[in-house]
Amino acid sequence: MEHVYATFRLDAPPAQARALAEAILLEQTVETPRRVAEAYPFVRTRLMGDLSDLQPDGPDATRVTLALPVLTASADPAQFLNVLFGNTTLQPGVTLLDFDVPPALHRLFRGPRFGLDGLRALTGVPTRPLTATALKPVGLGVDALATLCRTFAEGGIDLIKDDHYLADQPFCPFEARVRACQAAIDDVAGRTGHRALYVPNLSGTPDQVRRQADLAQHVGVGAVMVAPMLLGLPAVYDLTRHHLDVPVLAHPSFAGGPRIRPEALLGKLFRLFGADAVIFPNYGGRFHFTPADCTRIADALRADWPPFRPALPIPAGGMNIERAEEMISFFGLDTMLLIGGSLLEAGDALPHRTRTLVASVEHIAARLVAGPHS
Amino acid sequence: MEHVYATFRLDAPPAQARALAEAILLEQTVETPRRVAEAYPFVRTRLMGDLSDLQPDGPDATRVTLALPVLTASADPAQFLNVLFGNTTLQPGVTLLDFDVPPALHRLFRGPRFGLDGLRALTGVPTRPLTATALKPVGLGVDALATLCRTFAEGGIDLIKDDHYLADQPFCPFEARVRACQAAIDDVAGRTGHRALYVPNLSGTPDQVRRQADLAQHVGVGAVMVAPMLLGLPAVYDLTRHHLDVPVLAHPSFAGGPRIRPEALLGKLFRLFGADAVIFPNYGGRFHFTPADCTRIADALRADWPPFRPALPIPAGGMNIERAEEMISFFGLDTMLLIGGSLLEAGDALPHRTRTLVASVEHIAARLVAGPHS
Repeated sequence: MEHVYATFRLDAPPAQARALAEAILLEQTVETPRRVAEAYPFVRTRLMGDLSDLQPDGPDATRVTLALPVLTASADPAQFLNVLFGNTTLQPGVTLLDFDVPPALHRLFRGPRFGLDGLRALTGVPTRPLTATALKPVGLGVDALATLCRTFAEGGIDLIKDDHYLADQPFCPFEARVRACQAAIDDVAGRTGHRALYVPNLSGTPDQVRRQADLAQHVGVGAVMVAPMLLGLPAVYDLTRHHLDVPVLAHPSFAGGPRIRPEALLGKLFRLFGADAVIFPNYGGRFHFTPADCTRIADALRADWPPFRPALPIPAGGMNIERAEEMISFFGLDTMLLIGGSLLEAGDALPHRTRTLVASVEHIAARLVAGPHS
Repeated sequence: MEHVYATFRLDAPPAQARALAEAILLEQTVETPRRVAEAYPFVRTRLMGDLSDLQPDGPDATRVTLALPVLTASADPAQFLNVLFGNTTLQPGVTLLDFDVPPALHRLFRGPRFGLDGLRALTGVPTRPLTATALKPVGLGVDALATLCRTFAEGGIDLIKDDHYLADQPFCPFEARVRACQAAIDDVAGRTGHRALYVPNLSGTPDQVRRQADLAQHVGVGAVMVAPMLLGLPAVYDLTRHHLDVPVLAHPSFAGGPRIRPEALLGKLFRLFGADAVIFPNYGGRFHFTPADCTRIADALRADWPPFRPALPIPAGGMNIERAEEMISFFGLDTMLLIGGSLLEAGDALPHRTRTLVASVEHIAARLVAGPHS
């Protein structure tokens, strides 16, 4: 019988962890007194799962793997989350480390529709890291943002995304912004042949986001951005399965709280629910993620995990041009470098600074591809 | 100028907290280097917010209140969350304690449509605590659950809700279950005059949940249940604003992670986004919430917070009949007692046990209303 295997770290020594693990298993499967649930043969054999493994994880912690029932987890995308780690998020001292999904769930989840290879095909960049930047700060009007978008496109940036504070504000309405920015992209493409992907931020309720997606695709944008934890992962599922023909970049806003390891949430869950590329806080920026955290997130996004396409990691959060070489060495070529606010510090030199970024990424990547002896 | 005021606890002594608070303010408003953002007068004056207050909170922590810009927060329900506590959830040592919403946001958020008074009117219970129970465990078929529903309705329970693991599973399809359970309710109402509210669990993507809501309302259910953190708070907003004519009970699954105090998340955010009643883990049950935690959640749900209607607290999670008196004394009359799995332990005595629960709640409440000297 297939199961969803979920591995948790319990902040309890192994001697106490078994009872705790059994309680979590009951909570995450039938949430009914054991005696009551076990009285029904179908419930007992198919819906109560199993304690699959229990190992010490240092002196004060235990690593536990639960085999959770596919019959509940496969009902719908929200129910999958509910079974994986629903009520137990309310318990202290429990962290979800990892999970896997059995073949029975491959019909429910398709993962990225484009992923790493699809984004390379759409941008026409076969080998080097992709470059990305952001239209910001919030508060600029449509014309100012479209001018920025034009400058970035002329400078050769691959993806130009909205800042995540850009929504449908009166001082910068969604429709006017998306039309103006995409027009700038189209104009530059017509003149220079370089067609950047403009990536508007979709924000709001499911009804609002669907209307924004329709409009953005009608205008011809190259991709869209969403923050899955703000919108709800099931809303991203609907978008990617039923309402979008372009790739999705996932933003990590509101994703920091749950007791889920970042590589499991940003790496695996975002990918599973359809993100083609995932923005996450790089080490050494404004956030406290370590190099090891970042490696695990990038690895989870790109890992061989059939049938789900690899997704593209986007380390970000206070990055600058000077770190391009270090970041490419660290993350490898299959990476998108998102350099936002620090580019804007160039002021009048922004066109030059943008071209410098693009050229240096090309240069560093070419050197890496040629190998250490070139 | 109006602001959204958000109060955070920073795990840092006041001497270090000011720089941290300034960084959080920048992150939660324009997320752009200060020098770049301040160059635009409209951004500087309207979109960068303010550090409103900073007070020691013991020797190692600081309480900080940020004045966040209404112009971004009011764009849509997801953007409100993004401004309130988006990227900063990714930082360690920051907890959202409380927030308030200015009049400019009262058009965006309406809060509960029914709330405490509306649920009292719909159930015809003017004074005493409401009683509720759950159809479970998952794995039972439609007939078994409908039989349970009938038993509970005959016993006089006010609300009968689906377990949160009931979705649209092949062994218990949503439509068949909702029709059968509501038919049981209608039958009991016709024979006895007692019309319990049947509360199906809506689970899935926004498209799925909307279809379930339409169907459930067509069948005539009394209310619905959703888990806002599983579906996404903006999805609940859409449901309550545009797709539902019946009350919503909110379930706390997946709500335990974010670094948001439970009274702010389950108490205020759930209420703001439209929950009429909120289930939360009671003290002394399977979860680790303290009596003080529970008081704060219940108080936040029922607090005078115009223009938002008070919502009904539903302490739950391993409750039983024997605790009814204690719970009513603790939470007061404006409470819903949700007693799920433990009722089912009665086995063949379930009808009797259900009537005992209802009678004892009526008895305890009558004594409380009459006062200590009766």
